[in-house]
Amino acid sequence: MNQVVKITGVGSYIPEKVATNASFESYRFLNEDGSKIDSPNAVIIEKFKAITGILERRYLETNLVNSDMAFRAAQKAISKSKINPESIDYIIVAHNYGDVKLDSVQSDTVPSLASRVKFLLQIKNPHCVAYDMLFGCPGWLESVIHAQAFIKAGMAKTCLVIGSETLSRVIDKHDRDSMIYSDGAGAVILQAVDEKGGILAHETVTHTKDEAHFIYFDTSNEKELKDNTRYIKMYGRKVYNFALSNVPLAMKKCLDKSGVSISDIKKIFIYQANEKMDEAICQRFYKLYNMDVPDGIMPMSISGLGNSSVATIPTLLDLVISKQLGNHQVNTGDFVIFASVGAGMNINAMVYQF
Amino acid sequence: MNQVVKITGVGSYIPEKVATNASFESYRFLNEDGSKIDSPNAVIIEKFKAITGILERRYLETNLVNSDMAFRAAQKAISKSKINPESIDYIIVAHNYGDVKLDSVQSDTVPSLASRVKFLLQIKNPHCVAYDMLFGCPGWLESVIHAQAFIKAGMAKTCLVIGSETLSRVIDKHDRDSMIYSDGAGAVILQAVDEKGGILAHETVTHTKDEAHFIYFDTSNEKELKDNTRYIKMYGRKVYNFALSNVPLAMKKCLDKSGVSISDIKKIFIYQANEKMDEAICQRFYKLYNMDVPDGIMPMSISGLGNSSVATIPTLLDLVISKQLGNHQVNTGDFVIFASVGAGMNINAMVYQF
Repeated sequence: MNQVVKITGVGSYIPEKVATNASFESYRFLNEDGSKIDSPNAVIIEKFKAITGILERRYLETNLVNSDMAFRAAQKAISKSKINPESIDYIIVAHNYGDVKLDSVQSDTVPSLASRVKFLLQIKNPHCVAYDMLFGCPGWLESVIHAQAFIKAGMAKTCLVIGSETLSRVIDKHDRDSMIYSDGAGAVILQAVDEKGGILAHETVTHTKDEAHFIYFDTSNEKELKDNTRYIKMYGRKVYNFALSNVPLAMKKCLDKSGVSISDIKKIFIYQANEKMDEAICQRFYKLYNMDVPDGIMPMSISGLGNSSVATIPTLLDLVISKQLGNHQVNTGDFVIFASVGAGMNINAMVYQF
Repeated sequence: MNQVVKITGVGSYIPEKVATNASFESYRFLNEDGSKIDSPNAVIIEKFKAITGILERRYLETNLVNSDMAFRAAQKAISKSKINPESIDYIIVAHNYGDVKLDSVQSDTVPSLASRVKFLLQIKNPHCVAYDMLFGCPGWLESVIHAQAFIKAGMAKTCLVIGSETLSRVIDKHDRDSMIYSDGAGAVILQAVDEKGGILAHETVTHTKDEAHFIYFDTSNEKELKDNTRYIKMYGRKVYNFALSNVPLAMKKCLDKSGVSISDIKKIFIYQANEKMDEAICQRFYKLYNMDVPDGIMPMSISGLGNSSVATIPTLLDLVISKQLGNHQVNTGDFVIFASVGAGMNINAMVYQF
């Protein structure tokens, strides 16, 4: 039997600190040009909830940084997979803002977060190579694709792939979009194993011609601040339309490459961006096969966890595998699709058999 | 004939702005604990020059950022290789601090620098995947190793690999080490070709047990500043000893894997860290084979260009290939070694035949 690349352990770190929608009631939200928004906060928050499905999100404990979360998620994934940490060939950490301390506006990326995680895991083997990957929100899934490439190229047998982000540390409090973002970390162990299934196909695209700066870094909506601190920003409508037009196509291309039938897909693990957007993507995807969306195909964690960027998919996967998300579960032999979209603008998809 | 992975084009961007050693004469250098250094600046600078070999360095023009340099180096590499930019499968940008504007202390990494470069190159093909790689100073060479993995795994045929950094934007003016750092960008096109040679072997290690934080991010040596802005920092002596102990071993392991004889090596393209350190590494490497260092084996650009991190090796390669560095040249069939060391702490080496 040929070796395949399989997930042999999953772990996540969900911060304990809960920020409810009510916690934004006293915020002074402004339009991008600094003008006042005509609606009261209660209405803004209600509308936000209706679109995104977010009721609350998690923020990292004040004394911790991003790499601390990444480390904790990694510990759990290693423990689940039962591997010896010294056998790991690559540690890949997908993030976009590095370690941001609570009292700082600077991203700390030297050493890389992957080196910090390796240090915290106390791995001594120098041939465990640690690097960071910046690819917008699809960074975790893309890092899984990297790991597969290293395994296929004969450069690795075991990889630790982490997605970890503290978006709470880069948000503009005068921007409504700040309510979307949250913190979290998820990790998987990927291994070359003598089984069937595993990663069956992947598809990645980077759209930059018109889209490169749809998600960007800019100053506050509050122009009175007169400081040059920049925050995560997006043209929400453009991102929404871009995702709806392009994510279903990437998923279809990936599924068609895999040779798996659409009717055999048991779950879609989609990047937790926004509930309405994710549902619309799923509908358009099935419409490409002239099908209705099957019940329970798309596990969602966004209502309680918000959008933690690179961390959403591995965290969601951990919740489903450990049966902590309603009736959702995956069983050996199940075919699933992973898909994500985000800054770059990047989209990726992967067909996987458990 | 088997396909091999070869460099088919090299380009660099060397900023025009020269910062001479004399430009530091008015600086107020302090020890790490904030205490005054007993020597006058003229003595500090003379000693610095004797150890590092640096006479002057380049700083990026004030209106540009890191990704602008990366783009310009990429344009030249593409032009040299004569490929159609739309045929590029991957754009990988190695850096460590993102885009830092002159008036900001923040690193801008969203979108990734690779997406910015793709945008500036006006590449439309969505299957040209753009991502950033953080791996300390060895990031460019490690990205070359990534490109090779993608080619070997059948995921790519043509990759653009860039190393670009603006260290002048992250230096503490009260730290003597600030004189080492400079700005620059270098790029190569790597392709799967029906030739012989190309990448013959590589070796990568990440040492974190004691070494993870030898190069780090911290506040100024001037404690009076009372602000929390952080800068690039290193324990220079520890880095020096680490490099001397470990880089020659990694180079030897790589060379032995390649099967190439030490006597067939024509050039060593080493990361431009510090002239004395590079010379000592080279001596120790040849000593492992009981040999003296051959004359002219190690082209050096550090005296005029300083240490531009990820950019030093591709810039050096461009200078040698375009015969702009004394009598240094490489010819078809020549075997060479690339090697780098830096934050992580990471070391890599690659044996290559032109």
